[in-house]
This record gives sequence, C-alpha cells and structure tokens, in this order.
Amino acid sequence: MALPKKITIHELGPREGMQIEKNPIATSEKIRLVDMLSECHFAEIEVTSFVSPKWVPQMADAEDVVAGMKRLEGTRYTGVYLNTQGLQRAVMTQKLDVQGSLSVTASEAFSMKNTNRTIAETFAETEKRIEGFQRFGVQANEVSVMAAFGCNYQGDIDPDHVIGLIDHLMKMAADNGLTIEFIQLADTMGWANPLAIRRMVGKVQDRWPAQKINLHLHDTRGLGLANALAAMEMGVDDFDSAVAGLGGCPYAGFKDAPGNIVTEDLVHLCQEIGVETGVDLERLLIVAREAEIIVGHPLPGKAMRGGHLDSYRRALAVN
Amino acid sequence: MALPKKITIHELGPREGMQIEKNPIATSEKIRLVDMLSECHFAEIEVTSFVSPKWVPQMADAEDVVAGMKRLEGTRYTGVYLNTQGLQRAVMTQKLDVQGSLSVTASEAFSMKNTNRTIAETFAETEKRIEGFQRFGVQANEVSVMAAFGCNYQGDIDPDHVIGLIDHLMKMAADNGLTIEFIQLADTMGWANPLAIRRMVGKVQDRWPAQKINLHLHDTRGLGLANALAAMEMGVDDFDSAVAGLGGCPYAGFKDAPGNIVTEDLVHLCQEIGVETGVDLERLLIVAREAEIIVGHPLPGKAMRGGHLDSYRRALAVN
Repeated sequence: MALPKKITIHELGPREGMQIEKNPIATSEKIRLVDMLSECHFAEIEVTSFVSPKWVPQMADAEDVVAGMKRLEGTRYTGVYLNTQGLQRAVMTQKLDVQGSLSVTASEAFSMKNTNRTIAETFAETEKRIEGFQRFGVQANEVSVMAAFGCNYQGDIDPDHVIGLIDHLMKMAADNGLTIEFIQLADTMGWANPLAIRRMVGKVQDRWPAQKINLHLHDTRGLGLANALAAMEMGVDDFDSAVAGLGGCPYAGFKDAPGNIVTEDLVHLCQEIGVETGVDLERLLIVAREAEIIVGHPLPGKAMRGGHLDSYRRALAVN
Repeated sequence: MALPKKITIHELGPREGMQIEKNPIATSEKIRLVDMLSECHFAEIEVTSFVSPKWVPQMADAEDVVAGMKRLEGTRYTGVYLNTQGLQRAVMTQKLDVQGSLSVTASEAFSMKNTNRTIAETFAETEKRIEGFQRFGVQANEVSVMAAFGCNYQGDIDPDHVIGLIDHLMKMAADNGLTIEFIQLADTMGWANPLAIRRMVGKVQDRWPAQKINLHLHDTRGLGLANALAAMEMGVDDFDSAVAGLGGCPYAGFKDAPGNIVTEDLVHLCQEIGVETGVDLERLLIVAREAEIIVGHPLPGKAMRGGHLDSYRRALAVN
C-alpha cells in the first residue's frame, strides 16, 4: 500500500491521437500540440510514428512535425517505428531521442492481425531489430509485451505465458549485451482489471526485482485509472497516457471506443493522493481542450470538464 | 482487502439524466428507458423527480412516467422529492416504493445555493420532513450527507464535520423513533479520491458499525470507479450510479462535466473482480446505447463502446 513518491509519465497523445483520426490534421496543428505539451514538462513526449505513408497516411508528415517542433530541456522526444526503415527515418531527423525496445504480442491471434507475424516470427525479427539498434547506435533498454492482459481475438491471457515471453526477450537482450531497465506491460485492448494488474505486476516484480515496470494502460471499458492506482500501490511508477484521451481503440466492437488512459485525469488522481508527476496540470487542462478543437470532436477526458480542484481551492482562498 | 461478495446498485439514470437535458424528451421515451432498465434487474430504479414544473419543466410529466412504466418483481421504483408537497405527489401515484431520507449538505455555501437554506435551517426543515413521513406512512431508514468530500463553492470538507452532521441526523432519527439502516455519503461535485474515501468510510464504520454505507459517487474528474473500488475494499456494498453516465454536473466550470458514475462500467468492474451485482450487463450495454439515442448526444460510458468481455470470451469459445 506504499504509493510511490513520484511517477514518470510518457505522453503519447500526438502519436496515438493523430494516427487514428479520419480527417486530415494540418502539420502545423500537430506541431502546435507537441509544443503546448512541452510547456507541461513531461519526461517524454511521443511525437509521431515513422510508418509507411501508404498504410498510415495521417503520419506521412512525421519528419515535418519533428522539424517544426521545439525541443525543451528536460523532455525526451521520441517516435514510433515498426522496422529498420522506420528506425532509420527516426534517427535521420537528428532531433529525436531514439530509443530501442524488444517487443512481442502475448496474443498469437493479435500478433498475426497487427503485424502479420507469429510470436516465433517476431522473436526472429527481433534479432534483426537488435542489429538495427547496433548499426544506428540506438540504446535499447526495454522489453515490452503487448496485449499482456487479454485480447479481443484470443480472450484472457495467462500471466505465466507473459512471464515466459518476457523471459525470452530478457535472454535475447542478455545474449546481445543489452542492459534492460524497463519491462513494459501493455493492456492494448483494455482487458485488465485491478486484481489482474496486482497479479501480473507481482509476478514480474518477483521474477525481475531489478527492473522497473512501465504500464501502458487502455481505458477501453473505463477501468484505466483504477488499474493505474492498483499498480501504483504495488510500487509501479512509470506510466504511458494520452492528453484528453487522444487515440482510441481500432480493435473494439464500436468505432468510438476509448484508448489510452487520460493524462490529465491521471495527473489529477496523483495530485489528490500526494504522488508527484512533475506535470503542470493547470496548463495541461488547457491543452486537453485544445486537443478537442484540433481533432474536431469530443474526447473522453473528464478533469478537463470538471475543472482543476486546486484552481477551486485557490479561488476560494482568495475570496 | 476483502471485497464484498455482492453489491447493490441503485440506478438513477432516468431521474438524473432527464432533469439536466436541455431538449424536451418525450414522456414515452422516458417510460421506455425505465422499462428497459427494469429488464436488467436492478434493486432500485429512481424513476423521476416530484419537483415544481416551474423550476424543472423537464420533470412536469413525473406522474405520467410513473403511470406508464411497468413494475417488475424484485425492483423498487422510487422518486425524488424536496418537500412535503413532492412527497405527497409521490405517494399519490400509488405505484412507487416511497422512501424517506434525512438529508443535509456538508457545505454551507452549497446548501444555500442548492436549497436556499443554511445547514441549521435544513435541520429545522428535517423536523417537518419527519412529520410528513409519519403522516404518509413512509419509512425513513437513511441519513444522507451531500458534498461530503468537497464543494466547488467551499473547497475541501473536513471528515469530522461530516461525522458531526451524521451524528446530528442520527440523534434526530432516534428522537423520532426512526430506525436508520443506511448512511449515505454523496460526492456531489466529484471531489473525492481513493484515499479520502478510505478515510471517510473508515470513520463512519468506526462510529456506526451497525449501519450500512451507501456511496453516491460522481465521476466529474474521472476518479469515480477508482473511488468505488477503494470503497468496496473497505466492505462498502451499496452504490448509486446512472446508465451510460446520464446526468452531469450543473455546478462544474464547464457545461459538459460528467455526473454520476456509469452503471455499466461499475458492473463491468464488478464482474471482472468477482463481485456479484445481479445486473444483466449484456442487456444493460444495449440500454446504455439506447440512452444516448434518447438524449440525442454522446454520454460518457465506456464499456458500451469497448464491449462486454464475456461476449468476446463466449464468441472465442465457440470458434
């Protein structure tokens, strides 16, 4: 029950949010969003995705977004890539903090659907990925398991299966001289619940006590913050989230299903229970409302509608 | 950490939802919503509000809604009233399970704003309220404190102040020969957090171990389900909620602020952590989407977009 003193938040809104939008969003608006987020002081902002413009036309301006944004001291700016070509594009911007991760999907069915590779083929591909990291001098310090709690195409996922996958990736890392600091568990389709979080996090902590855990939680069925709290109470202090709930879940039965947990709601939770985030919540609530304007439709964030309790407290103290 | 085996859910959507809508909603649609909810097997459905049609024109058809709805065995059908006249209207329908509650607002500022009475005046009015219960043969078995965790017009609320208010109401009940079974704590403007829930619930349990606690939680800033879980882990097994998140918060800084916690998201949480609710979730998810159609705009519910995990599990088991 000991909450961490401070958590680190990785803001994924610009990447998660823009890739799912049907209507084109101007490059200048994407840059504006990143710059506004920079002023909130995140440890990391995931800026864009270096994927094929043929498959994800919304991300065709990845290089332009990076070229246009301002870097602020204290924030790492990262990009997503799915193969060596994407990695090379990210490195060639010369403006990103390119990071490496060894990643696998816990669901065989989702692995095929999302990447057209089996889990075994993903491991083989990971060898090539590691060669790419070495070629481009990119540090890889994370192993990651997607759909670690359940999958719309395969159902519940056995925690011991996830442990086996992490074990495999940890061995590959060790064999290649990589030092893994983070183990990421991603609830890609919103199957986790607080009890499942405790069970899975406990198993990972027991097996790899020296590694920190990052949780990538989706709020597809509304349990995101309850899951984050359950994890914090296990000592987890590293979370992904998206401002205003930008993004969504393209794999759910309904097209408007929520995606990542909402950054400002997570920061609000932390402020109220005495966990530091380093994030400027008042500024972030303004960015969240701007994010709705940028995408042109309502987003699931709640604190941006309810308002910041500290702003009420301050106003009342003055009167 | 012992979760209750089963919780009781009070469905407030028809009342909370309809009173806040700007556009008029046909009486037949209100009846249809109540009837659809009846098929989901709630312990209680709050059907309507017997308030002055001058102040709340959306509720002018309260008697017609009650006359038109079907009662199903196993569900209590209730109505809200704010004075003896409203109580009389509810009783005269001869179709409702009229219940009595001794209620006060923890915030002096909100008490004035919401009811135009100080807390002291509310206690005096409560004497008249009790006379009304006796005159109409209505059982009063609950004391209730609104804004028990904080208030947009007064800030944080001291838990010991809440304990004092409950104590006062409990004494009034005893003096009038009433047997109080429930103590309701209402987070009317979404100020609670999981630590505040534990603190407040713990104090009430310590002082009144024989009474059950009902929590009326609002999700104004996104912490509703985390708060509900924190309460369940303290043994609380009685919750209010609204299908699809019908309702909202008229007191927040932004007009689209969320209100009550979402019934189907709460039921989903319970199903996944092994707590029974008696509610048919699959049916309820359909009602939630119908509720959006009835009010004509998106509502904050998430499970209705993400889909029911058991339906995925069943579909996968068949294939």
